[in-house]
Amino acid sequence: MAATSARRVLVYGGRGALGATVVKHFKAQGYWVGSLDFANNEDANGNVSITKSESLLEQEQEIVSGVKSLLGDSKLDCLVCVAGGWAGGNAAAEDFIKNTDLVLKQSVWSSAIASRLASLFLRPGGLLTLTGARPALEGTPGMIGYGMAKAAVHQLVRSLAATNSGLPEGVAAVAILPTTLDTPMNRKWMPKADTSSWTPMEYVAEMLHKWVENQDRPASGSLVSLITANGQTKLEFS
Amino acid sequence: MAATSARRVLVYGGRGALGATVVKHFKAQGYWVGSLDFANNEDANGNVSITKSESLLEQEQEIVSGVKSLLGDSKLDCLVCVAGGWAGGNAAAEDFIKNTDLVLKQSVWSSAIASRLASLFLRPGGLLTLTGARPALEGTPGMIGYGMAKAAVHQLVRSLAATNSGLPEGVAAVAILPTTLDTPMNRKWMPKADTSSWTPMEYVAEMLHKWVENQDRPASGSLVSLITANGQTKLEFS
Repeated sequence: MAATSARRVLVYGGRGALGATVVKHFKAQGYWVGSLDFANNEDANGNVSITKSESLLEQEQEIVSGVKSLLGDSKLDCLVCVAGGWAGGNAAAEDFIKNTDLVLKQSVWSSAIASRLASLFLRPGGLLTLTGARPALEGTPGMIGYGMAKAAVHQLVRSLAATNSGLPEGVAAVAILPTTLDTPMNRKWMPKADTSSWTPMEYVAEMLHKWVENQDRPASGSLVSLITANGQTKLEFS
Repeated sequence: MAATSARRVLVYGGRGALGATVVKHFKAQGYWVGSLDFANNEDANGNVSITKSESLLEQEQEIVSGVKSLLGDSKLDCLVCVAGGWAGGNAAAEDFIKNTDLVLKQSVWSSAIASRLASLFLRPGGLLTLTGARPALEGTPGMIGYGMAKAAVHQLVRSLAATNSGLPEGVAAVAILPTTLDTPMNRKWMPKADTSSWTPMEYVAEMLHKWVENQDRPASGSLVSLITANGQTKLEFS
């Protein structure tokens, strides 16, 4: 299905838990929704499938070419990048470097490519959202690679918000900084955790939808922490 | 020459402009000095040569094995990581992704591997110094990949300074944050610049030497900006 309807959003990581929730939410609101991931999301109006995973440059070329084919001459109102993952380890951990490599690919590569896509395919005044992590605002000794990757994403958003960053006129670039999302995987791996401090994915999807519609959209460059306690989520801007 | 003398320092990036200055300086102070780089530094007492450049994991394995052979059962007093480089570009630049890939390898890979080496080969109470960049404390729209890479290094130092980071007891991890160093390449490429605001490499080498000797060593986790004006350099800690 071509990208012909009025409002268009592309979800980078549209097959992940949060990404799939975002795809569904925007679809239900009447958006044309594209999904970009290693596998297709059948709920989306269109898909770009990633096959290159070993070279950042090859991956970017494949993705830019795929998004160009998907969109034709249309522009996006919003690019939501929720690609990512998690891997832990301190400097003494046997898998520290292996996990660092993984999280760099998951978070830094995807965020850099998303920035490139934003420069090419967002309409003026559009929105780019990336995904950071609240713990990475400070040191993260038990998940060193993950903290580095997310800190890079935080600084990227500051760069994109500054003059001459290469984004189209009036585009806002912001990062959402979850602590723990209420996903099936987190429930599986942390069965005894207090889930009342986990942020519901539907909350995130609805928030992003409002921002696209220019309701309460944060200033470009904002890092928006999602802080959930007793089942209530509040936002903290930095 | 084996690593048998009392004080030992390994310079990661020992063939670069700053690295070679650091190697010479410590040699002149009577240290055993190892150099780790893509090419050997003949001024060093010993060298580890890097041949793997496409895979972080392979590069780490090669380097750990090489350093182990070089040191035997000896431990390092200090690991100075001054590996790095520079590449610019905003999100609209044709070479944005290519340059991002380059600076990630130059700064993030080297800093992560240096952290791993520190966990394996530093003596208790030793010193690890990494290299950040003062501009990356804020957004860097004209050099987006570089800013991301250096912001990751800054956060890494915070992680390493925290409890259970995997470093040996009492090791301090700090980052030096130059703005512009007075190197031959910078003089070549910026022939009209005001070099009175550039930081002399010998100043950096002498500062590092003092820190190793526990003179004015900053607290672990410090980001130490080098600010030079009118030929005078002062330090700012954050």
